[in-house]
Amino acid sequence: MKNINSYDFSVQNLGKATISSPIMMSKNTGDKFANYVNESESILHHIDANLATGETVVSSHINAVELAGPREKIYFNPAHVHASIVTCGGLCPGLNNVIRAVVRCFWYRYNVRRISGIQYGYRGLVAESPFEPIKLDPDVVDDIQMKGGTILGSSRGGGKKVAEIVDSLERMNINILVAVGGDGTLRGADEIGQEILKRGLKISVIGIPKTIDNDLSFIQSSFGFDTAVSTAVQAVRGAHVEAHDSINGVGLVKVMGRESGFIAAHTALAMSDVNFCLIPENPFDLEGKNGLLRHLRERILSRQHAVILIAEGAGQGLLEKSSGTLPEPSSRSIAKTDASGNKRLHDVGVFLKERIAEYFTKENIEVNIKYIDPSYIIRSAPANPNDSIYCSRLGAHAVHAAMSGRTRTLISLMHNRFVHIPIEIAVAERNYVDTEGSLWRDVLENTRQPVSMKNI
Amino acid sequence: MKNINSYDFSVQNLGKATISSPIMMSKNTGDKFANYVNESESILHHIDANLATGETVVSSHINAVELAGPREKIYFNPAHVHASIVTCGGLCPGLNNVIRAVVRCFWYRYNVRRISGIQYGYRGLVAESPFEPIKLDPDVVDDIQMKGGTILGSSRGGGKKVAEIVDSLERMNINILVAVGGDGTLRGADEIGQEILKRGLKISVIGIPKTIDNDLSFIQSSFGFDTAVSTAVQAVRGAHVEAHDSINGVGLVKVMGRESGFIAAHTALAMSDVNFCLIPENPFDLEGKNGLLRHLRERILSRQHAVILIAEGAGQGLLEKSSGTLPEPSSRSIAKTDASGNKRLHDVGVFLKERIAEYFTKENIEVNIKYIDPSYIIRSAPANPNDSIYCSRLGAHAVHAAMSGRTRTLISLMHNRFVHIPIEIAVAERNYVDTEGSLWRDVLENTRQPVSMKNI
Amino acid sequence: MKNINSYDFSVQNLGKATISSPIMMSKNTGDKFANYVNESESILHHIDANLATGETVVSSHINAVELAGPREKIYFNPAHVHASIVTCGGLCPGLNNVIRAVVRCFWYRYNVRRISGIQYGYRGLVAESPFEPIKLDPDVVDDIQMKGGTILGSSRGGGKKVAEIVDSLERMNINILVAVGGDGTLRGADEIGQEILKRGLKISVIGIPKTIDNDLSFIQSSFGFDTAVSTAVQAVRGAHVEAHDSINGVGLVKVMGRESGFIAAHTALAMSDVNFCLIPENPFDLEGKNGLLRHLRERILSRQHAVILIAEGAGQGLLEKSSGTLPEPSSRSIAKTDASGNKRLHDVGVFLKERIAEYFTKENIEVNIKYIDPSYIIRSAPANPNDSIYCSRLGAHAVHAAMSGRTRTLISLMHNRFVHIPIEIAVAERNYVDTEGSLWRDVLENTRQPVSMKNI
Amino acid sequence: MKNINSYDFSVQNLGKATISSPIMMSKNTGDKFANYVNESESILHHIDANLATGETVVSSHINAVELAGPREKIYFNPAHVHASIVTCGGLCPGLNNVIRAVVRCFWYRYNVRRISGIQYGYRGLVAESPFEPIKLDPDVVDDIQMKGGTILGSSRGGGKKVAEIVDSLERMNINILVAVGGDGTLRGADEIGQEILKRGLKISVIGIPKTIDNDLSFIQSSFGFDTAVSTAVQAVRGAHVEAHDSINGVGLVKVMGRESGFIAAHTALAMSDVNFCLIPENPFDLEGKNGLLRHLRERILSRQHAVILIAEGAGQGLLEKSSGTLPEPSSRSIAKTDASGNKRLHDVGVFLKERIAEYFTKENIEVNIKYIDPSYIIRSAPANPNDSIYCSRLGAHAVHAAMSGRTRTLISLMHNRFVHIPIEIAVAERNYVDTEGSLWRDVLENTRQPVSMKNI
Repeated sequence: MKNINSYDFSVQNLGKATISSPIMMSKNTGDKFANYVNESESILHHIDANLATGETVVSSHINAVELAGPREKIYFNPAHVHASIVTCGGLCPGLNNVIRAVVRCFWYRYNVRRISGIQYGYRGLVAESPFEPIKLDPDVVDDIQMKGGTILGSSRGGGKKVAEIVDSLERMNINILVAVGGDGTLRGADEIGQEILKRGLKISVIGIPKTIDNDLSFIQSSFGFDTAVSTAVQAVRGAHVEAHDSINGVGLVKVMGRESGFIAAHTALAMSDVNFCLIPENPFDLEGKNGLLRHLRERILSRQHAVILIAEGAGQGLLEKSSGTLPEPSSRSIAKTDASGNKRLHDVGVFLKERIAEYFTKENIEVNIKYIDPSYIIRSAPANPNDSIYCSRLGAHAVHAAMSGRTRTLISLMHNRFVHIPIEIAVAERNYVDTEGSLWRDVLENTRQPVSMKNI
Repeated sequence: MKNINSYDFSVQNLGKATISSPIMMSKNTGDKFANYVNESESILHHIDANLATGETVVSSHINAVELAGPREKIYFNPAHVHASIVTCGGLCPGLNNVIRAVVRCFWYRYNVRRISGIQYGYRGLVAESPFEPIKLDPDVVDDIQMKGGTILGSSRGGGKKVAEIVDSLERMNINILVAVGGDGTLRGADEIGQEILKRGLKISVIGIPKTIDNDLSFIQSSFGFDTAVSTAVQAVRGAHVEAHDSINGVGLVKVMGRESGFIAAHTALAMSDVNFCLIPENPFDLEGKNGLLRHLRERILSRQHAVILIAEGAGQGLLEKSSGTLPEPSSRSIAKTDASGNKRLHDVGVFLKERIAEYFTKENIEVNIKYIDPSYIIRSAPANPNDSIYCSRLGAHAVHAAMSGRTRTLISLMHNRFVHIPIEIAVAERNYVDTEGSLWRDVLENTRQPVSMKNI
Repeated sequence: MKNINSYDFSVQNLGKATISSPIMMSKNTGDKFANYVNESESILHHIDANLATGETVVSSHINAVELAGPREKIYFNPAHVHASIVTCGGLCPGLNNVIRAVVRCFWYRYNVRRISGIQYGYRGLVAESPFEPIKLDPDVVDDIQMKGGTILGSSRGGGKKVAEIVDSLERMNINILVAVGGDGTLRGADEIGQEILKRGLKISVIGIPKTIDNDLSFIQSSFGFDTAVSTAVQAVRGAHVEAHDSINGVGLVKVMGRESGFIAAHTALAMSDVNFCLIPENPFDLEGKNGLLRHLRERILSRQHAVILIAEGAGQGLLEKSSGTLPEPSSRSIAKTDASGNKRLHDVGVFLKERIAEYFTKENIEVNIKYIDPSYIIRSAPANPNDSIYCSRLGAHAVHAAMSGRTRTLISLMHNRFVHIPIEIAVAERNYVDTEGSLWRDVLENTRQPVSMKNI
Repeated sequence: MKNINSYDFSVQNLGKATISSPIMMSKNTGDKFANYVNESESILHHIDANLATGETVVSSHINAVELAGPREKIYFNPAHVHASIVTCGGLCPGLNNVIRAVVRCFWYRYNVRRISGIQYGYRGLVAESPFEPIKLDPDVVDDIQMKGGTILGSSRGGGKKVAEIVDSLERMNINILVAVGGDGTLRGADEIGQEILKRGLKISVIGIPKTIDNDLSFIQSSFGFDTAVSTAVQAVRGAHVEAHDSINGVGLVKVMGRESGFIAAHTALAMSDVNFCLIPENPFDLEGKNGLLRHLRERILSRQHAVILIAEGAGQGLLEKSSGTLPEPSSRSIAKTDASGNKRLHDVGVFLKERIAEYFTKENIEVNIKYIDPSYIIRSAPANPNDSIYCSRLGAHAVHAAMSGRTRTLISLMHNRFVHIPIEIAVAERNYVDTEGSLWRDVLENTRQPVSMKNI
């Protein structure tokens, strides 16, 4: 036996929790009544074993992740709490559900009466922000889950102005900040949490991971992801119909996935309509004997139609190599990164559409290319019931974590349990589709595309 | 009283219908049993009246349109019928429903056992077509209505090769051709019908109007239109959410509508999320005091978000005036028309997106533009129940018309009744949104956009 | 030529309209700008013609129905208007859309600032009602169309207390009442309108027809009907799957339709899954050589599954004849009518399920019966886009009618145009499925059920 | 440290796998190509840890569960395989997806060309069954996933006739049986597997767990469950609208859940519309100070509407106590169990509706009760994309397990990994909602219902 894994998952606390929770629960197991979460309850993070060697973990102290949920003793006196919530970055299905769950849990379970919604992401917290916080209560958030988007608005950027943001929190007497966002947002939240501790303030910063690309580590699946895949499936279905019903039809769908192809991979598994699933983790060539265009040609000649599903971050290398003018991302800006600090990507969908058209013109084969970019339809969709449930639980667990005095802590779902993770660990590395693992293997089985489309 | 209207709606017959229909119905009214349609049953086309003058129609012979439906006497002996169906042009929700209804009605009601599905539009009928007809029966068409598109495939073009097509029909011994398509397809069908009569053949040509733009005259609403609007509404809903939740968000949605803005107009009425509905019938300026950009600026400054819905054919004049490179339509071809003979349009959505971005950059106002082009998602959608009902009835009425010996005849819905119209009249003029009429008035009331955005 | 039709469609006015409308429109045709509706614009109601005899209408004065829409001159000074809206009877998709459209049109088009929502139908207007009106404005009605039902609540009953209701209107200084409801509600509205005139008051009463059964005369199709059919189609789809996948499965679905089988008839046309469509207008026997059970037996033996779709009002005669205890309607009350004055129906779905089970037990044939009653799911559904458009236009037209001084007037859609009808005519007779007409003929073609299942 | 958990998860093999798989994969990690699953790869089942004591598992041999997936070496020579698949019990969303995935994986990955679909569950395998197997190939299963149900049909019963079934398998030369079903089906499958081994036959029996109630142990979540919850959410939404919009409206929805309330619990978490969630695991009283009726009364008096969501197996104790006639389950049979051996339940929905009506009549409080039973609509729904993905992977993993020679083995998802479990362990105990655990705690937080409604 050896120690396989050495992340330290212990999360930070503002101080000792000494106040009795206003939530009435049982402390005993066996009485059939719902229990508080005990401070020592945890699960193993690393669960791989080896039947041959019996090799497994030895110490749960390093490998264990504490469970989220309501505690018997809490840190904050509810009467003194001014809670706040902020949503950052691109839209994602479920944001309103999270907001609603956070507000309802503060209000109904802890009787917190001051809850502020920060507008337009961190830009609502920077110095001289023109955006005033919104007062939130159960009436304001009633039925908002039926709409996509976030009632608070969202924006990229602002997260670097850590000192200004902490100044704002102090000025407003906020002692809990729930930040909903992706990689950049959470990194910002962690820095805000550090600055708070440096100033000796008692403000809890709790993160809720929002990444439609599902590219955060230590999170089984991010909220909105299921809705995103469901909506992408409709677009692929449309592309398949268009391709199938034209002479040599090529349906081309671009979905989100800057660095990780999870949406594309899952979408390809849902319907078996996809013939080529292209993701950032699996580079491919266009030209050459083993290139995409050659394989596409074979498919067209043998089956008269094809569907290509491409993640926005796939094939970026090809675009960089390509000479001449390139399709730009949605805005015309020449900046190399957006306000969230994400690298601006060239529009690989438009690029690929044009290259396919050129290729088949040269080959003198009639093709009919139908290009669909459903990104904004996906991002703005209301959460489906599965995501609604997930968001409602995520939001409540964030509130419990905050009230218990956790800070710089992320709410995560791991092995189907809600847990606390240090934000810092979660943003340290991205989550990629493992091209040697089970998900990608199943995609290859479904699409029956070549294992590699790189020339040697 | 005067004669307001002088279309002659009488349709052509191949000959006298003398064979008793295998469909058992009642000839008497009052016995509570379903009746055959009597050859003289008709409705008025022109129904406008004037309460002040009492002015109305005098002669129903000119103004009357005959009702569609099963006749007691039919022209073709079912045992000798070889029926065929062809679907042409772009996809439209409901094509499979129409195919299914046609096949089922021939098979179950008239016991016709030879039904051929022509592949890929008229290109399946031209000389040396590589596409063989498909044998159709109720099993083949079972459940096809659950899929979008057409199981027969579709294509543009081929319709000009009238002689070749009639040769093919003769060679295959086809005596009924049901053609499903738009303006160009129907014009082709009428010419095929003329050529057939010139050759003295007994082949019935029946048209079923398919135009997702709803731009055919004398047809209350075309099949698939309701599904198209429903799907467009989802895209607009997404654009609204994206716009509303960003700082100065502009949601821009492009929908179908080459010459007629019906989809855009109806979509704008469904949700009240649209602030500017732009259609080909209502030209607008971009620049200037009364131009779109100026009005958009006001909206953004006062409400911080806006949604623009544009039909693909709107603002084409602006594009032609515009210097420099223009966004091209989906294919790169430099031909000025597509295979259906439609003028190729420049992509007004991409054009407008860029002009808006430029304008606000110059005005130094931050905007976030989200552009959605849901066209292929709309076209490939399966028919909703409303369109399913419509298609199932259209298909059956086409079969009844064919069996009765009508030719060069279109099945239409007029004042909520199924009628026969000469194809020739239906393609003579397009159907436009009347900018002085009730529909556009209601759009203006909903969007509260300026009545005109032209500078004087 | 002779006079076929003699309804007098002229509607009542409170007085001469002399105030200029605040809505700016054009008075001229040909200038491309949206026009006011001219007071003499109308359409013919009776449009049947006879090609053989040339028989048609002579006088448009009797047969003509005036068009709805904004007038150049209005009766009420907007500054003095206190408008109200009430929703009565069972839920129906689209109620919130209508409320929203009415409020928005009063507010944005006429600048009316006092709009009251009456709660729980007429019970919010009777003497000593515990339900206070709700103040309505565009913010209150924002997004309510995303929810089914009515934000005002609804109830049956109260409509007989005409004097009390007029007292309440007087007391509240209401001068416009928009009543949304069915047969009973509209009859009540007309009596309220009469009482108002008797008292010499200047209160406009406008009806908007709401009948999920689509059983009102002179209305092409009622709002919510399309959504209802769409939702019923899903239930039938489920019944078909359940029936098809069991050994001798029988799927039985009950839908609304107390006296008119329109929902059942349209639903049967949407999918071709229905084998027996049973409606009130087409009585049937259970037993005997030509009875339903015998035909069902044949179907089961030949195809091993069957789907029956029954309107709630079908076969009531059979239940009355049946001895023994009968399944009761949803409430246990022994009253013979409900609060709306509708006759209480026995639950024909449960009855039929039991009779089928008994019959096949006796016949010693295994069957698996799956019974679905989707009524409340249908009634509470949010309006689909098609109904949303319809409701938004209905609501606006009701406001235009009210502002013009019309009273005891119903907004209707006839031959696809919005018109004014006297309420009194609309409630004089019900709309039934004509079993000799085109709709029922098409149902018979789709289901291929016997034309009659009565024994002779 | 101590040994917490002692299930033995090792699965049975027909013999040594010595044939090279026709699936080309990599044997090396690090080369970026998809890998075979190594025979020793496994995960821990028990993953709870204790941060305070460091207590955790020591030996992975007992606690480890082997991973499912394609092996380098397989047991069966694909050329000699005659595979079969059978679907048993009630319908569940996703059955067709599973069938399709199984057929496609056999056909495309292993080149197996004899695949038989057994009709109507085990009844297609008993002696003298009238139901012939269906020949399956990729064309037959194309697009079947768009329909609910199972193309093979299903039935309860037949599973006890183990010897007859094994005789049939022998007679047909079947060497792989994939059985899709719940508790009873799987128990049957295991007995079939035992009989096969007793006879010394080489037939692999692989189970795929199907339980819409989600009540199987060692399975994270069963396929179709997510679709079921999504569909139930719509019914609850309808009930909420109906309740909210009536005077003292009570919406009552009954969902599946014979012994386990997972559907009800998840549905209650999705929308926060549910006020009382009643499940079998949490008994309640109707009468008395702490009974449901008293709490319902309080809710109605304070909020004027309420929504109750009840699992079909909840409150069965109350029904047994109740005197007089009881509502029967769907069939009239007097047998105490159905053909699957499940105890027949009384219809608690109808019972509760009547008791609520009686109670409020006695209390002289007007209530309007709307009862919805969406069971068959839920069961017959097509799988949503999430379940489609799950089913497509389950099916493929079953094929890989069978080809590797596993038998009496169940494919399961555990901690988000596909694993092999002995069927015998999975059916040994049911999965219940832990009323002291996180799920039920979150339900209580959402509904804010009393922790217990039992009188002391």
